[in-house]
Amino acid sequence: MSVRKLILRSLLHQNKFAYVPAILHQQHHTHEKYDNYDDRHRNKKKKFAFTLFGSILVGSTITDDSKHKLNKDKQKTEDEKGMEAGEKRQDLPTFRAEEVSKHNNKNSFWVTYRHGVYDITSFLPSHPGGEQIYNAAGYSIEPFWNVYGMHKTHEVYELLESYRIGNLHEDDMVDHSDDELWAREPYRDKRLIVKTAKPFNAEIPPEYQIAHFDTPNELFYVRQHMPVPELEAGSHQLRVVLAPTQQVSSLSLAQLARLPRAIVRAALMCAGNRRSEMHQVKPVKGISWAGGAISNAVWSGVYLRDVLLHCGVDPNDTEGKHVILTGADIDATGQNFSTSIPLQLALDPNAQVILATHMNGQPLPPDHGCPLRAVVPGAPAVRSVKWLECITVSEEESSSHWHKKDYRSFNPSTTWEDADFESAPPVYSLPVTSAVCEPRHGDTVRVRDGHIEAKGYAYSGGGARVLRVDVSGDRGVSWRTATLQQDHAPPRTHYAWTLWTARLPVPAHCDQMEIWVKATDSNFNTQPENFDHIWNIRGILSNAYHKIKIRLQH
Amino acid sequence: MSVRKLILRSLLHQNKFAYVPAILHQQHHTHEKYDNYDDRHRNKKKKFAFTLFGSILVGSTITDDSKHKLNKDKQKTEDEKGMEAGEKRQDLPTFRAEEVSKHNNKNSFWVTYRHGVYDITSFLPSHPGGEQIYNAAGYSIEPFWNVYGMHKTHEVYELLESYRIGNLHEDDMVDHSDDELWAREPYRDKRLIVKTAKPFNAEIPPEYQIAHFDTPNELFYVRQHMPVPELEAGSHQLRVVLAPTQQVSSLSLAQLARLPRAIVRAALMCAGNRRSEMHQVKPVKGISWAGGAISNAVWSGVYLRDVLLHCGVDPNDTEGKHVILTGADIDATGQNFSTSIPLQLALDPNAQVILATHMNGQPLPPDHGCPLRAVVPGAPAVRSVKWLECITVSEEESSSHWHKKDYRSFNPSTTWEDADFESAPPVYSLPVTSAVCEPRHGDTVRVRDGHIEAKGYAYSGGGARVLRVDVSGDRGVSWRTATLQQDHAPPRTHYAWTLWTARLPVPAHCDQMEIWVKATDSNFNTQPENFDHIWNIRGILSNAYHKIKIRLQH
Repeated sequence: MSVRKLILRSLLHQNKFAYVPAILHQQHHTHEKYDNYDDRHRNKKKKFAFTLFGSILVGSTITDDSKHKLNKDKQKTEDEKGMEAGEKRQDLPTFRAEEVSKHNNKNSFWVTYRHGVYDITSFLPSHPGGEQIYNAAGYSIEPFWNVYGMHKTHEVYELLESYRIGNLHEDDMVDHSDDELWAREPYRDKRLIVKTAKPFNAEIPPEYQIAHFDTPNELFYVRQHMPVPELEAGSHQLRVVLAPTQQVSSLSLAQLARLPRAIVRAALMCAGNRRSEMHQVKPVKGISWAGGAISNAVWSGVYLRDVLLHCGVDPNDTEGKHVILTGADIDATGQNFSTSIPLQLALDPNAQVILATHMNGQPLPPDHGCPLRAVVPGAPAVRSVKWLECITVSEEESSSHWHKKDYRSFNPSTTWEDADFESAPPVYSLPVTSAVCEPRHGDTVRVRDGHIEAKGYAYSGGGARVLRVDVSGDRGVSWRTATLQQDHAPPRTHYAWTLWTARLPVPAHCDQMEIWVKATDSNFNTQPENFDHIWNIRGILSNAYHKIKIRLQH
Repeated sequence: MSVRKLILRSLLHQNKFAYVPAILHQQHHTHEKYDNYDDRHRNKKKKFAFTLFGSILVGSTITDDSKHKLNKDKQKTEDEKGMEAGEKRQDLPTFRAEEVSKHNNKNSFWVTYRHGVYDITSFLPSHPGGEQIYNAAGYSIEPFWNVYGMHKTHEVYELLESYRIGNLHEDDMVDHSDDELWAREPYRDKRLIVKTAKPFNAEIPPEYQIAHFDTPNELFYVRQHMPVPELEAGSHQLRVVLAPTQQVSSLSLAQLARLPRAIVRAALMCAGNRRSEMHQVKPVKGISWAGGAISNAVWSGVYLRDVLLHCGVDPNDTEGKHVILTGADIDATGQNFSTSIPLQLALDPNAQVILATHMNGQPLPPDHGCPLRAVVPGAPAVRSVKWLECITVSEEESSSHWHKKDYRSFNPSTTWEDADFESAPPVYSLPVTSAVCEPRHGDTVRVRDGHIEAKGYAYSGGGARVLRVDVSGDRGVSWRTATLQQDHAPPRTHYAWTLWTARLPVPAHCDQMEIWVKATDSNFNTQPENFDHIWNIRGILSNAYHKIKIRLQH
């Protein structure tokens, strides 16, 4: 079954202004307006974000009531059942979800509801909720209707059925029974490449990776394990627990802000970035990331080191201790997301681990941990816990399954049957990697003056700087050294990514070409040529040379 | 022409006790005595080292006189010329140096002198210099005679010719005209594998790498660029110069010792270790090191950081500055060996750069920088300047050719013609590497219970720990994770090597096997599978998988 691309947004403020006349008069969308929709809307959101984001997961306490609310089954009235739209109809053709998803603009706008496929292009200007409806472009409207029950009337069902054009293929039917969990998800930029909708995981497209050294917040790749919790900055408390005495401190963001300000420019990269390439060698488990699970930003807040010392951690008693970071996001069993890093790493001034409140000068967006997250530069992004509620200094690593059963390193011969996750080393740093962002695999590229230009990113974890990027247009027979764009940082504390540009000679009469890229970091580590001997069951640390094929136009 | 294995020793104390009756009565060497010779002798040396080492390069001042002395041409008297031994003789057979070198023990003891080859086995017990003569076993006696001129008499020449058995092959003739420069070299353990005699460069044999976690000082590999200077601990002064003000401090070892004591367990590895393997892919320039240019020790002294701060370096003004380290060893043009490291690295507490006076609890041996050397853990050993005389904090890197024209990184396509050394990044750290030490390539190994055992070392620079060593007996089809022996150190400050042991299954009826090893470090960097795309003109950073072939005996 194909994965449904489902973009959900926090429709909470629709309740505030969706149906008011101020929106209603925007009845005729110009194409330009549609293009600018994202930006205009985001500005509105900024104003409302902190006041409007709800109460389901406020602060560090999840009540039993709210857990029950999250997990409860949806109830339908008999009335709704009898009259519901979207019954299967034998007289209409069947469409695949992929076909439906192509009709995602004002010129051709399709949606689905249960078995029904609807062409509501002509209805768009009349939608009382205005532009909100674009969130469902090419997809199901069920997640939205499940939350905004005002749609579930005889009149609306009848109206919807009047636009009916077909049935959705059985294999593409999605169970929307847990939509309520996800309907308050933040608005996401349409340019993100969605890998999974629930939880929301999306790549930044390669052309936007190289367009900005610091990735704009709305284009930063998103990696969630659960629904996005809604926290309020004003009342948020960070608890710091020192085991085994269980000494507890509680700090508001205002109290945190009294510590020295910390700023670090750091790329965050999922340990599974480029997994899709490793998957081609032999299947691995995990989100099929291409190269878009890395972005770069300037993070600001306070040093975790300062917070820990402020709370009484003894910097001379660190051996074998860990800092467990717990987020407000919870899974279906009520367990909060958590992972840990060694206390020695947390206290290492070079490691520059911070608790960030801001991203590129803006308060953290909900998708990136609003109002407080850890940023562990040079480590896989999973350690940079979002929506941070609690820090525990302990003699044990985090016991969560995200920590104990994932993000561990195995050799290529280890199978799921014999993998001993708990004895395998946790991944606290990332190897050197690189990718070609432009051109893209399969592109046709115009040759100019016997050359083509390639661009991309390179990165190395643990504070290593990328020293050199070598690019080959002839499968490694010859290598060109790329021009680098880099942050300036002292040795061993380089956490930003590197953008690179290379000019490659093209032999005349050559109509296709393979581009290889490999980076070398300041420890002179470089990438393996292929995935054969770094393959691992989880498909992480997938850092072989990036190789793409293109066609040439002379 | 084959490289002559030439082991020179500091014969200085021969002057003190070589001819006294106490030595003369040791006329009949038992085999056991011979085996213990090194150890007994080393103990004697310890007592005399600091009082006896001479005056050629004492302290930080090299006088013009002494430079002249170092460079002057040897003068011979007419008398010497007329009567000299070692003229070519047509009536005798010709031997290659390699054949001569096999006769290196009391049962068959050959030496050469100019064109002559001599079997002096029967003379051994009569040698007035006693066991000193073993330094010339299988090699030329010229270096020793050039210094100890008492040999150059009619009587001794006649005596030598009475043992004549042949001529040395023309291709193996070595020019000993600069022997005086080298004759005061320290005594070296006979187990070292000599790569070049002048300067002395020698590997630790692989079996001794895995025999001790901390390499015994006398087995630690030796990498010299020039003759070993003789310095006196008692009068040694370290100058610290802060450019551009030229503020100079001068510190005796006693003054240095008042700073906090620093200890770091660190492997030192030549950037060219394993060059011989890269050379096989395509020739490179440099000493043809196998895997023996790495050893491990506990170094103690003081932190360079403390010394710099003590001398007034501003820790907040480090951007773009360098610490130039200058040794007392000088080349034929009178230039002192020097290289530099970034000031930020020198001041980084994590980097643990020390000025060492001791190695494994003993005062530094002459070959390892007596009485003071830098140790820059995790960096190529060239930065760990020996016989340290001067530290200059400067806005420029060292201008020496060792710094500017060597130990730089190039991509595989860079040739000697287009190499721009000054713009290429200097190597300040080392990538992850590993090697099989047992069995050795070409060995026949007995299979026990369907398995064989392999052992070796692994290492990564920049403070990274080796996390996993994978060993394959089937050319990478399957990998076994090795058992590791490691130092305990906080994250990012792991500088010791790792020793590993792996048990590999052997299919029945299999009579040969290829063993591959690769290590993964704490940044999850791993080695490239082969040398093709890391090849570089200088043959440094040669860290592809180590692959050996063995025969199996069931």
